[in-house]
Amino acid sequence: MAQPNHYALILAGGRGTRFWPRSRTRRAKQVLEIVAPGTLIQQTVRRLEPVIPRERIWILTNPLLREEIIRQLPGVPRAQVVAEPVARNTAPAIGLAAQVLLQQDPDAVLGVFPADHYIARPAAFLRLVRAAYKSAAQGRIALIGIQPRWAETGYGYVEFPAGDLTPGSLQPATVTRFLEKPDAATARKFVDAGNYCWNAGMFFWRASVFMDALETHLPRTAALLRTLPSVRSRRFRPVLAEVFPQCENISVDYAVLEHATGVAGFAAGDIGWNDVGSWNAVYELLPRDAHGNAARGDALFLDSAGNLVDAPAGKLVALAGVRDLVVVDTPDALLVCPREMAQSVGAVVKLLEKQKRTALL
Amino acid sequence: MAQPNHYALILAGGRGTRFWPRSRTRRAKQVLEIVAPGTLIQQTVRRLEPVIPRERIWILTNPLLREEIIRQLPGVPRAQVVAEPVARNTAPAIGLAAQVLLQQDPDAVLGVFPADHYIARPAAFLRLVRAAYKSAAQGRIALIGIQPRWAETGYGYVEFPAGDLTPGSLQPATVTRFLEKPDAATARKFVDAGNYCWNAGMFFWRASVFMDALETHLPRTAALLRTLPSVRSRRFRPVLAEVFPQCENISVDYAVLEHATGVAGFAAGDIGWNDVGSWNAVYELLPRDAHGNAARGDALFLDSAGNLVDAPAGKLVALAGVRDLVVVDTPDALLVCPREMAQSVGAVVKLLEKQKRTALL
Repeated sequence: MAQPNHYALILAGGRGTRFWPRSRTRRAKQVLEIVAPGTLIQQTVRRLEPVIPRERIWILTNPLLREEIIRQLPGVPRAQVVAEPVARNTAPAIGLAAQVLLQQDPDAVLGVFPADHYIARPAAFLRLVRAAYKSAAQGRIALIGIQPRWAETGYGYVEFPAGDLTPGSLQPATVTRFLEKPDAATARKFVDAGNYCWNAGMFFWRASVFMDALETHLPRTAALLRTLPSVRSRRFRPVLAEVFPQCENISVDYAVLEHATGVAGFAAGDIGWNDVGSWNAVYELLPRDAHGNAARGDALFLDSAGNLVDAPAGKLVALAGVRDLVVVDTPDALLVCPREMAQSVGAVVKLLEKQKRTALL
Repeated sequence: MAQPNHYALILAGGRGTRFWPRSRTRRAKQVLEIVAPGTLIQQTVRRLEPVIPRERIWILTNPLLREEIIRQLPGVPRAQVVAEPVARNTAPAIGLAAQVLLQQDPDAVLGVFPADHYIARPAAFLRLVRAAYKSAAQGRIALIGIQPRWAETGYGYVEFPAGDLTPGSLQPATVTRFLEKPDAATARKFVDAGNYCWNAGMFFWRASVFMDALETHLPRTAALLRTLPSVRSRRFRPVLAEVFPQCENISVDYAVLEHATGVAGFAAGDIGWNDVGSWNAVYELLPRDAHGNAARGDALFLDSAGNLVDAPAGKLVALAGVRDLVVVDTPDALLVCPREMAQSVGAVVKLLEKQKRTALL
């Protein structure tokens, strides 16, 4: 089934501070086993394998994570795990991959996937992926959206024509609008309307189509990326280090998609998508005992309910008389916070940065 | 000031499960630095030193703790740190010490002290200790009681004659009754009446007076202990191992004190006594930040109040958005529980015993 001119680009540059203290700059969320089995990026590659074999997978990440990602993904050619010299958001990142692919396969069709999401039903997901590649091969820009399950304000939305959203359908609808992260009332309206999807960052296009779009909307960045030599040339890294920092720091949504017309939208049915965005999201994914306690590692719950424990091997975590806490233990740092406030981890990390406690970051 | 025939017996046999996971069978409360500086038994010896020098201090403990106690107390002769072959409560323990002392000094006056209490104002305490030794030297049984600060149901009480309790007085009153741990209403009455003290386990008597009392009230135990050879003889340990398990398992309060008449009671003034009976008691002893958070070790409090953190060197404990928790971290076990439920640690230890997880005990 795999088409030789279909490629996947996995965006794995994220820092993932929301999983501190498990996640660190050198062990970001995507390289952690947050939901077994395997790390999130290993799961992403394994999930795509029936459609895109490892030798046609490309990964963009940051210099601190590159070696770990190579180690975790045997079969993905080393040269295809590229470290961005600086973080420049998704438009230059995808442009970089598109340019590199174009040089070796003018016919390349590129699917873009986040490295750190969880999908419970990969078979249903792959049916959509195949359909999206097919649309992209025909020259369209395609995307997979996720049916909203609540009025989330942390995601962008994609508008489908009213009455034209059939979850799981392999016939795409034409996207009418891209919408930035809404406020709560607007998010509510989107969910109630029924023709909006979460934008989950999964896009498909020919490399040539993408570079043309970049040429139109970010001509400076496109021109810079066109100067890149072959990825297998010795000059690739120094030239990348020279030109990439000069690229515009902008997301593909703002730079390209919002201006695009005729985008083919696939609305996923119940594929069990979860962006694993916080410890609370992990809690939702893990098996729980009769009192709603979930644990990764050795935990003992006494008169306790609704807690999430994450601890390394060889450590017992005993909770007595507590409710709805997140307790994350590592050899050098421990976090305790209410599960519903799991996002406040970011504030802890910011404080540590301010205190220059780099060993803990 | 020190009298050559005055000796101290420090009872250090307790297991101290209430400080799990910091306390373990081999690292019980008395050998831990729970409130700096020094471990509780080191503080006990240091506090007594102006009255009883180390060479006249005797310590009873259990076999698991003996070597650690010897290590922590240079200057206390090794032979005077005696391991009880089995736990037999305080009556046989004090009888053992009294018998051993009698053999080498028929004039010995013995003060008994718990190993694991904290006293903030040692000078005021020592004035009482000196007065109590003096009473004991004159042939009386003496004790130091603690003025109750709340209606505690976990301690025994000592009744003074109505109107005859002057805290801090060096003139003893004659104790009228010993009372077991009361229920809440009775405890309330004791506190309101004003002539009751907490029984804090500090007793004073001539060794000969104690052995006579034991002869009267526990003749079998007294007879068994009288068979002990000199503590410096090679036969001491085997004979102790033979006779001690046959002694009655009973506290000195029940066996001797409740039957005694003319006991000289000293009611302590504000000596800052604390039995360090739970993590919550430790919280009360530690300095706290503006939000009532206390920490031993490296802690970071974010929107958190009233918490106690205890963690080893090299570990950061971050608390975000939580109140009134106890968080105790060790390399192989971590405890999280509400501060007011710090006693529930015992239930955790019981569960671990039931699960035969001896490495964690």
